[in-house]
Amino acid sequence: MRTLKLIIEYDGTNYAGWQSQKNGVAIQDVVARAVHKQTQEKNVLVGASRTDAGVHALGQVAAFSTERKISCDGFLKGLNSFLPEDIRVREVEEAAADFDPIRQAKRKQYRYLIWNDPIASPLFRNRCWPVGFDLDLSAMQQALQLFVGTHDFASFQGVGGSVQTTVRTIYQATCEATLFPRGSGKGEGEKIIVVEIMGSGFLKYMVRNIVGIVVEVGMGKRRAESISDLLLAKNRTLAGPTAPPEGLYLVKVCYA
Amino acid sequence: MRTLKLIIEYDGTNYAGWQSQKNGVAIQDVVARAVHKQTQEKNVLVGASRTDAGVHALGQVAAFSTERKISCDGFLKGLNSFLPEDIRVREVEEAAADFDPIRQAKRKQYRYLIWNDPIASPLFRNRCWPVGFDLDLSAMQQALQLFVGTHDFASFQGVGGSVQTTVRTIYQATCEATLFPRGSGKGEGEKIIVVEIMGSGFLKYMVRNIVGIVVEVGMGKRRAESISDLLLAKNRTLAGPTAPPEGLYLVKVCYA
Repeated sequence: MRTLKLIIEYDGTNYAGWQSQKNGVAIQDVVARAVHKQTQEKNVLVGASRTDAGVHALGQVAAFSTERKISCDGFLKGLNSFLPEDIRVREVEEAAADFDPIRQAKRKQYRYLIWNDPIASPLFRNRCWPVGFDLDLSAMQQALQLFVGTHDFASFQGVGGSVQTTVRTIYQATCEATLFPRGSGKGEGEKIIVVEIMGSGFLKYMVRNIVGIVVEVGMGKRRAESISDLLLAKNRTLAGPTAPPEGLYLVKVCYA
Repeated sequence: MRTLKLIIEYDGTNYAGWQSQKNGVAIQDVVARAVHKQTQEKNVLVGASRTDAGVHALGQVAAFSTERKISCDGFLKGLNSFLPEDIRVREVEEAAADFDPIRQAKRKQYRYLIWNDPIASPLFRNRCWPVGFDLDLSAMQQALQLFVGTHDFASFQGVGGSVQTTVRTIYQATCEATLFPRGSGKGEGEKIIVVEIMGSGFLKYMVRNIVGIVVEVGMGKRRAESISDLLLAKNRTLAGPTAPPEGLYLVKVCYA
């Protein structure tokens, strides 16, 4: 018996999220079906992160066990031949027999893209959150810094989350602006704000709730300092709106 | 009577190109319909560049005349409210009464994106040309330089082009590689090759034919020097393949 680790990229637009469920097509089901087609076994496919409907992944991690002797490269090519174009396996690796993509995950990195211009972009639709108000980047950077460290994130957990503890550690939370190059002229183009968050783990909607409130700070509707109080309050109803799923990317899951 | 100039961005994936035609929905028709809805007039909408089916635009230019006294900002908001999400008017400006977006165009800038990795990207599908072979960037840069200047581009004109002269001037033709950031680690991610071409005007499929042959040079299938001979030959059948439409972007049309 071998355990294989998959690194998967997907465009989440047309899916009901990673996790199998009754309503809509889940990415997990589509990938599991491709695995079954190749192995002709009844493998169980486990993914590291339950990304929500519409959320994308650059590096989702999943694992399954198989008795087949197909090489990793054979799996890579075979699985991709069974998958639709909006889901690709990027890497297949042999993993330890007891590899558990959920429990052994040490850090997860998420990225959130904000298209900060009064006019949304056709080419980036379903790839970022269009925010028409001019955002104050340094206020947002200041706000993000307040999330770094070990906190009880109960105020930033979406309804319906069921976990034993709402304490998580954020290692890094930054944002920077980049110009989408519209022409060859300097300074032409629209502002894209890239938020990067790395943490030990994340509660349901946690990244989207953090981004939602950070954008409120960027709009001047809320002071960055209020975030410390919100963390202490441990009350979701006090916090801000949830940023939409289409700007969110699961970038990477780290196991070491 | 006023003449208005529109700068338009679109995702060309779902359209049969800019120009009105019998088969399929053209972007020109969709924008013209939005204009008619707002003006209630029978305006004629003229676009600067006939982008092919599947080709995108960051800065297509179009113009129409109207007797309505709606402000430019009113047009901007109104037109976008009538347009689907994959087409946006980015700017509306008053233009000279005799403004002709086609004849008065002095330069056009195109961009072509190549996803240079063995595995195509779900998130960049319909946004770039996935090329799995490792491409030699400096050979491609050398090849592109040979197109700069005034040449007869008959060897690079697609079948069905009908123009008086096939002589065009290329002012600039460059390419550079950028890494798509997959994680926070340095050097992680896949190579995206960005080709930028600025010229006085372009024949049918000309940019895609240039990119097609430049990629052959990058793959080592053809020597960069052979391009000079091809230009002299003025024979399309000798040149290389046509790069697919989804990697191509009309970036900008310049009138000064």
